[in-house]
Amino acid sequence: MIKIKQLLAKVLEKIKPSKKEILEEEIFSRKLIEKVRKTGRGQVEVLLAGSLARGTHLKGDRDIDIFVLFPEDYSRKEFEREGLRIGKAVFRGHKWEKAYSEHPYIRGEISGFKVDIVPSYKITGTESKKSAVDRSPFHNAYLQKKLSEKQKDEVRLLRQFLKGVKAYGAELKTSSVPGYVTELLILNYGDFESTIKAVAKWEKEEVIDIEKQLAEDYARKTFGAPLIVVDPVDKNRNVAAALSLNQFSRVIAAARAFLKKPSTNFFFGKKAKTLTAAQAKKFIEKEGLIVIEFSYPAKTVSDVFWGQLKRMRKKIVNELERKEFAVLRSSEWTDEKMHAVIVFDLKSNKLERAAKRVGPEVTNEPHSERFLKFHKNPLSGPRIEHGRWVVEIERKHWVATIFLKELLKKLSQTEKANIARALKKRSGVMADPKVLAFYNKNKAFKEWFSSYLKGKEEFGEY
Amino acid sequence: MIKIKQLLAKVLEKIKPSKKEILEEEIFSRKLIEKVRKTGRGQVEVLLAGSLARGTHLKGDRDIDIFVLFPEDYSRKEFEREGLRIGKAVFRGHKWEKAYSEHPYIRGEISGFKVDIVPSYKITGTESKKSAVDRSPFHNAYLQKKLSEKQKDEVRLLRQFLKGVKAYGAELKTSSVPGYVTELLILNYGDFESTIKAVAKWEKEEVIDIEKQLAEDYARKTFGAPLIVVDPVDKNRNVAAALSLNQFSRVIAAARAFLKKPSTNFFFGKKAKTLTAAQAKKFIEKEGLIVIEFSYPAKTVSDVFWGQLKRMRKKIVNELERKEFAVLRSSEWTDEKMHAVIVFDLKSNKLERAAKRVGPEVTNEPHSERFLKFHKNPLSGPRIEHGRWVVEIERKHWVATIFLKELLKKLSQTEKANIARALKKRSGVMADPKVLAFYNKNKAFKEWFSSYLKGKEEFGEY
Repeated sequence: MIKIKQLLAKVLEKIKPSKKEILEEEIFSRKLIEKVRKTGRGQVEVLLAGSLARGTHLKGDRDIDIFVLFPEDYSRKEFEREGLRIGKAVFRGHKWEKAYSEHPYIRGEISGFKVDIVPSYKITGTESKKSAVDRSPFHNAYLQKKLSEKQKDEVRLLRQFLKGVKAYGAELKTSSVPGYVTELLILNYGDFESTIKAVAKWEKEEVIDIEKQLAEDYARKTFGAPLIVVDPVDKNRNVAAALSLNQFSRVIAAARAFLKKPSTNFFFGKKAKTLTAAQAKKFIEKEGLIVIEFSYPAKTVSDVFWGQLKRMRKKIVNELERKEFAVLRSSEWTDEKMHAVIVFDLKSNKLERAAKRVGPEVTNEPHSERFLKFHKNPLSGPRIEHGRWVVEIERKHWVATIFLKELLKKLSQTEKANIARALKKRSGVMADPKVLAFYNKNKAFKEWFSSYLKGKEEFGEY
Repeated sequence: MIKIKQLLAKVLEKIKPSKKEILEEEIFSRKLIEKVRKTGRGQVEVLLAGSLARGTHLKGDRDIDIFVLFPEDYSRKEFEREGLRIGKAVFRGHKWEKAYSEHPYIRGEISGFKVDIVPSYKITGTESKKSAVDRSPFHNAYLQKKLSEKQKDEVRLLRQFLKGVKAYGAELKTSSVPGYVTELLILNYGDFESTIKAVAKWEKEEVIDIEKQLAEDYARKTFGAPLIVVDPVDKNRNVAAALSLNQFSRVIAAARAFLKKPSTNFFFGKKAKTLTAAQAKKFIEKEGLIVIEFSYPAKTVSDVFWGQLKRMRKKIVNELERKEFAVLRSSEWTDEKMHAVIVFDLKSNKLERAAKRVGPEVTNEPHSERFLKFHKNPLSGPRIEHGRWVVEIERKHWVATIFLKELLKKLSQTEKANIARALKKRSGVMADPKVLAFYNKNKAFKEWFSSYLKGKEEFGEY
């Protein structure tokens, strides 16, 4: 398919760093390595790792991972202390912070590059690893030996594709495809197009074992994950372990959609169409769609607030479910200035006023006694159903919107100070006409709310 | 406890047939047996069975079970033909009908007695039984040998108690305690009071094995029922198999309630208090309580109509549940003259207008294709949740009362003629004020509806 080839060439042009850029990065990182080595006083080896070292990084990536390799006879304590000392010394005069993976390390910014200085043990093989990052130098060596120049570009394409469909990254919270896995996939399937074609046919518990280290069944039994990619340098590790079933499935669906209708949108996204006012009105007036809004908390960094907002939504969903309201979906949004919004899709805004309480089995005499004593005057019952005592009692909360108003008031007492103040300043359940007015007025809300209401995988519209 | 003894004496007085009554029954049944024997032309033996034969029947019981025993060399066909011939001949000039248990037999009425003429094989032991009723003569013989005169009265008390708490009878649909089991319980525990005390302590899978024929664990594994009563004349049979878990549990609860507060109400029932208009109003206005009413069908025997009404209720419950309305409870009522009523307790009368449809796993490509093709323009989605395609589509029916109105119209086309006509004449969902007005006006409805709304085991109020 010549068309895909042309398309990929066009994409690559945009995402491959220029020769000038690469030269600049090389010079910078070589200098940096020298500096680290000196700071290490001859006790350590220094290694460039990450996609930059492997030549698979994307244009504009300014990430530099430096590994500081300590001899194995360093105690854990010495290793950590010395690792931090070197890191801090390197960043003298620059912005830096202490970060944590399995052990603490220093990261910061120098000349526009984001630099990680990661201490690690220098081990002779992955069997003797002492800390989780010790494997990285082996990954580096393996890929440098195996990946051809052409394949490095194929890795870039795959990485950009996964970014485009929001399924790239090693962080636990995104549950996506880690960078090292993209490199192994290209090694395994040869190039981008073959990889995408293979992905489209992936089955659950797909096993990729480039060095044929394990029997497939054994790998499935041992790792039991949606995708199993056996680490070529350590057969005891599934390097795709972080990938969730849902992200795994989304990647497959995206691959199929791309093959059906190839487009650069898969790599760079596409602005989704918003719903018309009339369409939005229909959604907003649905029984069970509830929007709460409150003021953006003063003096709060947006990054921090997004996390708080998400936790708050989850807390409210829990409270709703404890009251037996069935929450189908929920999401949160903020313009990072004035408004914070949480939206809930309930199966129904109103419940029957009576709540059924299923008690113990009649044969369990002491529990039955207690249940009957506790429910002296139920709305209905006690009666016996399927061998158990059953009563119906009156719900305190049977209308979700009313319950949410009370809950917001309560949260304005119990939430962290910044949120509590924001809730006190302004908070409430928005009536349908208000939601619609806000939708028509606020462009950013309109875009987010459209996409929420459509509830559609974006690549389904490319 | 002298009080219980006195109470039981009082009950027994009311339920034990008088000497005159017993004499009358004896004379009648002896004559009847003679008649059957003659009709059988010397080929058959004739036996009085049932509680009358065992002397455990209640005052006013007018049931006479006559067993006609055929030699084992009769073929099934001959046996059935001859059994029916004898039955019909005996009832000549009286009201009779053909009835079916495992094989057909004739039952009818003579001089106010309800007579069953049941053909059966005369077998030498229960191992060689050919039809299900062949065991009955052995039950008869066993009980006549074992039950003392005193114990026969204790059986009467137990039977009346179970009738009083609506847990007596061998018919499958009541799932209750069969008569033979009451006799075995008294044999096992000695008398009524000891039985009730034991019942109050029953555990699940209680095993009663008077002749110690089976190991308890073996009996549990073989029969796996809430109550296991091994037939003394056939160890392969649990004679309490018909008893459901719920009726089993109700009997236990009733026994406990009786021991706590003994009263004749347990034997003869008690008129329950109805709810006041204000109390009823509160129930009727509950979200989710729906009453439909239609006219009593012309020319329909009440017995037949109760069955039809019950089936109709179940059909409607199914339809509601197919539309995802959660039905908590439902029941039916008729005054057998003018009105038929079905009541439903829904968790909620309104559902969210959007219905979630969870599709196939993304990894299943052909099913995914089909699902996506089918849902071209969903209200929301398609998106991927937990590895599956999900869409939301618009419900056709999201308000239960509106759906029920349409359904009633449909049923007036598709139901049996008598019901269809009745629905066409008058049918509808009653608005709350109408239900309340009907409640205040119609005494029988008031009593039934009160008891439904209270939803309480009646013996809980004795």
